[in-house]
Amino acid sequence: MASELVQSPEIQAYLDRISGLDQPGGDQRMKQILRRIVSDLFTTIDDFDVSAEEFWAALHFMQQGAPEFGLIAPGLGFDHFLDVRMDIADKKAGTTGGTPRTIEGPLYIPGAPIEKGRARLDDGEDTGEVLIMRGTVKDLDGKPIAGAIVDVWHANTKGGYSGFDPSQKPYNNRRRIETAADGSYVFRSVVPSGYSVPPQGSTDRLLQSVGRHGNRPAHIHFFVSAPGYRHLTTQINIDGDPYLHDDFAFATHNDLIPEVVRQEDPEQIRAEQLNGPFSQIDFDFTLQKAADAADTEVMARNRAPAPAGA
Amino acid sequence: MASELVQSPEIQAYLDRISGLDQPGGDQRMKQILRRIVSDLFTTIDDFDVSAEEFWAALHFMQQGAPEFGLIAPGLGFDHFLDVRMDIADKKAGTTGGTPRTIEGPLYIPGAPIEKGRARLDDGEDTGEVLIMRGTVKDLDGKPIAGAIVDVWHANTKGGYSGFDPSQKPYNNRRRIETAADGSYVFRSVVPSGYSVPPQGSTDRLLQSVGRHGNRPAHIHFFVSAPGYRHLTTQINIDGDPYLHDDFAFATHNDLIPEVVRQEDPEQIRAEQLNGPFSQIDFDFTLQKAADAADTEVMARNRAPAPAGA
Repeated sequence: MASELVQSPEIQAYLDRISGLDQPGGDQRMKQILRRIVSDLFTTIDDFDVSAEEFWAALHFMQQGAPEFGLIAPGLGFDHFLDVRMDIADKKAGTTGGTPRTIEGPLYIPGAPIEKGRARLDDGEDTGEVLIMRGTVKDLDGKPIAGAIVDVWHANTKGGYSGFDPSQKPYNNRRRIETAADGSYVFRSVVPSGYSVPPQGSTDRLLQSVGRHGNRPAHIHFFVSAPGYRHLTTQINIDGDPYLHDDFAFATHNDLIPEVVRQEDPEQIRAEQLNGPFSQIDFDFTLQKAADAADTEVMARNRAPAPAGA
Repeated sequence: MASELVQSPEIQAYLDRISGLDQPGGDQRMKQILRRIVSDLFTTIDDFDVSAEEFWAALHFMQQGAPEFGLIAPGLGFDHFLDVRMDIADKKAGTTGGTPRTIEGPLYIPGAPIEKGRARLDDGEDTGEVLIMRGTVKDLDGKPIAGAIVDVWHANTKGGYSGFDPSQKPYNNRRRIETAADGSYVFRSVVPSGYSVPPQGSTDRLLQSVGRHGNRPAHIHFFVSAPGYRHLTTQINIDGDPYLHDDFAFATHNDLIPEVVRQEDPEQIRAEQLNGPFSQIDFDFTLQKAADAADTEVMARNRAPAPAGA
């Protein structure tokens, strides 16, 4: 895949000028990475004989598509690729074990209400199936971690997220649950649905152009953290979703598909103070010890802000 | 430059899924190009050990930078690279000769007023040096082309373009001049200044990060067209500009730097109905014969719209 044109001394010198490598100022790493990216794109343009019209159409698409880059990135597999690389790095460093990571997605909002031990996530307006999810946060030796924070967020039955779907109240289906003395957490919510990227939006049009769809199977996001432990970014999938193994964002992980048990036993229903059958998921989170303080924190990333007044 | 990880069967299969190559629908060319681009970016991430934080910072930069992609593209050399490729294709096809092409830039606006033979471009509010530019549009045999359209646009002395700089009236320094029976055109305007990309904007920050500046030398843009002739997209530079050979957009061409003559002769000044010395540029445009109808038209590209009511 080497374009003769791009390899010519003229274009090589041009690439040095473009990336500032012909002069002393600026950031050296940035220069090297920029040169590589531009050189690769020049090579792609030349190898595929990309026309000026095609180039400008692509640029216009990127310009229009910018608000959806947070969806385009996982749709083009970048989020999962970053996870793959972190998993490999962990393996090399011997820092493996515990609950696997998977992608964060673009819909986290910081600052959800904190509740101790048990929380209700939904505001009661969604008439879908009740979900009780519960488990323990523990370390690699199986020792429960008290005071860990299970920061959970998920879609409603229409596939929408509070803070992005204007029909929902702030922080609906978003809570931070502090584990009890025995490391346990439990929450009541409504079983989420999967969602599709906005129809006819940039992500949808891009994926359709290559014959793909933009559906995610139903899932629940988690940040799990505790002092001295490594921050965990993960999700669980709701078993049985038709897109379970065909996630447009490539986030499904075989170890993150817990069994969903339908509870129809009247005693169980009464114990949860419910009026009918519900779904139950039991899932424990296992955290690694943190290597240092930075390890306990979530990765830096531009995220949606907390709502005003929250 | 081959990442072992990206070359692994797992990631190769992953790239097929990402680009839709594992399924029949969609556009085959799009799939191939998308696969190449994503594969190259994965390789860059792996080769440079790009962290998740760096990736998300870059994505955020792209998202914020989208409104300036029309400046980032020439700043990263894409516009000029497309010209280089078209020049090579012309050489191979034997369709050379005439005035060289150079980049369009992102600031063309269609629908400028049409005037016959002679036009004044500026609205009289800019007190800079008067420019008289004149010449003939002709074919490769030197035969004048009557009724050709010289569509000209340039910045004012502050480096701003009407339609983008809200302080200017619509179509200031923009006209379409129809050549006279002898193929001639002439216009009066004000000698433009160079400009810099918006300070602290995305382009500026990107260029600064690699030690570059975002200045363009003073120049004048042209689309020149006539029935039966190949559409020409070009610019001339104003000789003497300090950035003449250090254009952030790489658009300077040695054959497109005409002499600027300072006219101080009272007779010449009177002949132009001016009150003082002025700058004069004589420049002929030479057009190639069109191969077909499409060849007479400007390349398709998303451009700024004509102002309402124009």
